[in-house]
Amino acid sequence: MPGSFLDRSASQFLDELASSAPVPGGGSTAALTGALAAGLVSMVGNLTVGQKRYADVEEEVRVLLDQSESLRRRLAGLLESDTQVYNSLSKAYKLPRDSDEQKAARTAAIQMALKEAEAVPMQIAEACVQVLDLCTPMAEKGNRLAVSDAGVAALLAEAGLRSAALNVLINLAYIEDEVFVRREQAKLDGLLEGKAQLKEQVYELVVSKL
Amino acid sequence: MPGSFLDRSASQFLDELASSAPVPGGGSTAALTGALAAGLVSMVGNLTVGQKRYADVEEEVRVLLDQSESLRRRLAGLLESDTQVYNSLSKAYKLPRDSDEQKAARTAAIQMALKEAEAVPMQIAEACVQVLDLCTPMAEKGNRLAVSDAGVAALLAEAGLRSAALNVLINLAYIEDEVFVRREQAKLDGLLEGKAQLKEQVYELVVSKL
Repeated sequence: MPGSFLDRSASQFLDELASSAPVPGGGSTAALTGALAAGLVSMVGNLTVGQKRYADVEEEVRVLLDQSESLRRRLAGLLESDTQVYNSLSKAYKLPRDSDEQKAARTAAIQMALKEAEAVPMQIAEACVQVLDLCTPMAEKGNRLAVSDAGVAALLAEAGLRSAALNVLINLAYIEDEVFVRREQAKLDGLLEGKAQLKEQVYELVVSKL
Repeated sequence: MPGSFLDRSASQFLDELASSAPVPGGGSTAALTGALAAGLVSMVGNLTVGQKRYADVEEEVRVLLDQSESLRRRLAGLLESDTQVYNSLSKAYKLPRDSDEQKAARTAAIQMALKEAEAVPMQIAEACVQVLDLCTPMAEKGNRLAVSDAGVAALLAEAGLRSAALNVLINLAYIEDEVFVRREQAKLDGLLEGKAQLKEQVYELVVSKL
């Protein structure tokens, strides 16, 4: 089906997700989850800036809001990228393999496409970490009436991060370049480290302010 | 803005989420997250049924698929319900409060609307638990090539559950009927119990099968 997944209705996106079509799948959903988290951070920001009661934190919240809006656009873009790299990988798998030369060329093309495919969920993971990092200051400074939305943002940013991680790992499982795999695994471990605890800290902060 | 949120494009849903408009917010997002999780369980199911290699588990997977599709529809419906109860609550807050009679009537209307508003995220939480319960058998029996999607489903179902929990708690914070609050708090605690661990179990199962 042509066109952007972001142009589909939410209802249609869910129908295509549930179908046996390979995209959208877990990778695109990780990006969408991160974008929803960023959107909720922005919502708290937009309910704070311009409010007299929050005039003293306005500048700080405006900076957080700029960052969450930038991350929301980035994650929406990564949702589309995820479906594009899937198509490249799918094309590589369909290359001919009649001769030894063709087999070698096909293997090389698949390996290159796998590395490109792995880069997308890694970028989704990085962006989700950045969204999660915005949740504590937004829950602390933002409009208290919307504090639960900052909490939901933290839950979704962390779930988006770990969903992206699974999609990094499934690509790494097929990549033969061991140096690349070790480097990416270390990068992923670094992104995941301490994030489940950070999410719980935001959750507790939010519950204390309800 | 009139019409169903599910009819909006994903892009427009994200824009409205990020805006200062009170809906969609964290509650609707919890329902959408649960629906995405259910959609991913269905995707694994749809990639399994009708496949020769999985003929021996076909009947079992078909039952799981029926359940995930039913939960997906239910969570999509709850997304809409969440915006409707918000509107009822908003109307109650706008009732006149010039006389003592009006004040008493307004307070009673707000308390009733709060109980109705609390019921929706509780139902979202219940549905998310049911989606999470489908993830282990689907990761065990379903098409192994899509096992990471069952893992993402578990991450999102648990995040949807906890997001819904925050939205139950924010309503309970304003409800004066202490018997009701205690009963609902106990119900919520029961829904949350052991679910973070269950999600981690599915995650480990999925990683072991990558």
